[in-house]
Amino acid sequence: MTVIDVHAHVFPRISRADARVLRDQDGPWLRDHGDGTGMMMAGDTEYRPVTQALWDPAVRVAEMDAVGVDVQVVSSTPLMFGYDADVARAAEWCDLVNQRMLEHCAAAPDRLVPLCQVPLQDTEAACEAVSKAVRAGHKGVHLGNHVGPRDLDHGAVVEFLAHCAHEGAAVLVHPWDMAADSRTDQYMLAWLVGMTAETHLSILRLALSGAFERLPRDLKLVFAHGGGAFPYLLGRADNAWHRRDIVRKDSALPPSGYLDRFHVDSAVFDERSLRLLVEVMGADRVLLGTDYPFPLGEAEPGALIRSSALSATDQALLLGANAVRLFGLEHLAGTRTLPSEVSR
Amino acid sequence: MTVIDVHAHVFPRISRADARVLRDQDGPWLRDHGDGTGMMMAGDTEYRPVTQALWDPAVRVAEMDAVGVDVQVVSSTPLMFGYDADVARAAEWCDLVNQRMLEHCAAAPDRLVPLCQVPLQDTEAACEAVSKAVRAGHKGVHLGNHVGPRDLDHGAVVEFLAHCAHEGAAVLVHPWDMAADSRTDQYMLAWLVGMTAETHLSILRLALSGAFERLPRDLKLVFAHGGGAFPYLLGRADNAWHRRDIVRKDSALPPSGYLDRFHVDSAVFDERSLRLLVEVMGADRVLLGTDYPFPLGEAEPGALIRSSALSATDQALLLGANAVRLFGLEHLAGTRTLPSEVSR
Repeated sequence: MTVIDVHAHVFPRISRADARVLRDQDGPWLRDHGDGTGMMMAGDTEYRPVTQALWDPAVRVAEMDAVGVDVQVVSSTPLMFGYDADVARAAEWCDLVNQRMLEHCAAAPDRLVPLCQVPLQDTEAACEAVSKAVRAGHKGVHLGNHVGPRDLDHGAVVEFLAHCAHEGAAVLVHPWDMAADSRTDQYMLAWLVGMTAETHLSILRLALSGAFERLPRDLKLVFAHGGGAFPYLLGRADNAWHRRDIVRKDSALPPSGYLDRFHVDSAVFDERSLRLLVEVMGADRVLLGTDYPFPLGEAEPGALIRSSALSATDQALLLGANAVRLFGLEHLAGTRTLPSEVSR
Repeated sequence: MTVIDVHAHVFPRISRADARVLRDQDGPWLRDHGDGTGMMMAGDTEYRPVTQALWDPAVRVAEMDAVGVDVQVVSSTPLMFGYDADVARAAEWCDLVNQRMLEHCAAAPDRLVPLCQVPLQDTEAACEAVSKAVRAGHKGVHLGNHVGPRDLDHGAVVEFLAHCAHEGAAVLVHPWDMAADSRTDQYMLAWLVGMTAETHLSILRLALSGAFERLPRDLKLVFAHGGGAFPYLLGRADNAWHRRDIVRKDSALPPSGYLDRFHVDSAVFDERSLRLLVEVMGADRVLLGTDYPFPLGEAEPGALIRSSALSATDQALLLGANAVRLFGLEHLAGTRTLPSEVSR
């Protein structure tokens, strides 16, 4: 079995000077402390302490070996999206980031699979960027769940998503740009509450707006963090759809009618939640995703799935088979056996 | 078995003139159309279409008979809180609302149990109001989950909650005042996503701030809508607490260490979610709550619990026994057998 983590982040080596491609002052860059630690920076601001695995593919692969992950599908981080920048600069920035992501993955081409990022603030530029990235070797796109007030169901974003389907590019949707105020500025509450509400909102808007009706059925859509709050609260949304005209006015089906239109990762950190998630979405629509190497990620990738009461067949789907199918990774499946795999 | 619904709303008959106690222009009042329908109003603005059961205790009790609910613990609606008004006016308004709630319940004293509301914007006034209401016959207080930027863990609110514990008044926390913008102004997304995120935030803030450490252990706290997004995402919060110092800095235990400090209602509308909820909280901490008579409530109160795979013992706890204990309703338990109960 090939174990594939579809939600893992890379912040490639990007200098302060590189960051000026995107913004004059507060562009995102990486401060490498030279001792295995570093800092994600936004201009002069320290955004988050990080470790070398985030940018060094050799360290990354060694850690993957240690925990039994064969392949990572890697994304940049939301701090790098640049959706609020000038379009031309954002397009150039995405080229730079996407090239660094390719270089990171080229260090271990049978272990690391890159997703690109795009200037989503401009549909034409975003479509061009994803087409170019797919030609260069990216397997899909890492997308923020909204661009300012534009959600995934906005006409411009739907057009982009349809283009991704046409290109065969999978789309990993990551929550970001959470409403921040004094109520959520402590304890990482923006990550714990805000991110999961963002993903909940994104999935419901795609369903209730009728956007799923307009999107191609072969669009490969994956939501991070176990679909945020959506799976547990699906009953509430369905009940509202059945009972209020203003909820169902733009959609042919209740939200539960669109579960076959997207996938989710498994990053829920609790076996009971994972069971609910698989019951709601089906075992063919949940993929191992860990948020590696960030501390809010799964400390031991795959452990939650392996320790669950899911059948061996379902575990194999979650641990890798679904990802092989969704990201087109047949060429990497079954080609290697990890030392750690042998010893289990 | 006595079936008790702890999350049911009343908007008593309140005239446009009554509403001027709270605010000159846009106070909440009830427009009765005289045909079994009405409209919750905020000044000149139509807030929500409603039916007679909301304000007429005879209709309410007839509907309770029809669906096999013996007792409702009734609350006002969040539209009526008045937390942003002048304190003196809000205190007078709460007196008016609380008196109308008593009158509503006096029509069927063995079927309807009132909760009061308080001017939470002022701790002293709120404490006075709850003491006065308890003396007048209220069994607890219906509380908004925040007052502007003050959350339940704010010192002033903690002081109020401690006073409620001292008075033996149960506290039903209802989400309200959701951040509203163009992303959530359609499809009742503020109710579907916003409310559940509000409750998630409230529970996490009480845990992560250390407020649960400061609150009396005998405080009777109930959160609406199955705890919002909290139960499904508990693993994410615990994982963050264990892995990031900035998450755990003010709390002795991870969020899962405080599950014995509050209760939740059962309004989740999906058997899989109800199972998760009972697994996470324990069967002695989940109470039948339906959001009656609003359309986003449970259409057939108690049906979800009765159709679940929970044991008969656990079902009895959820359907009524937990509420008897929490709200002190021993005098109403076992005193009556509904026709609908007999016929089942």
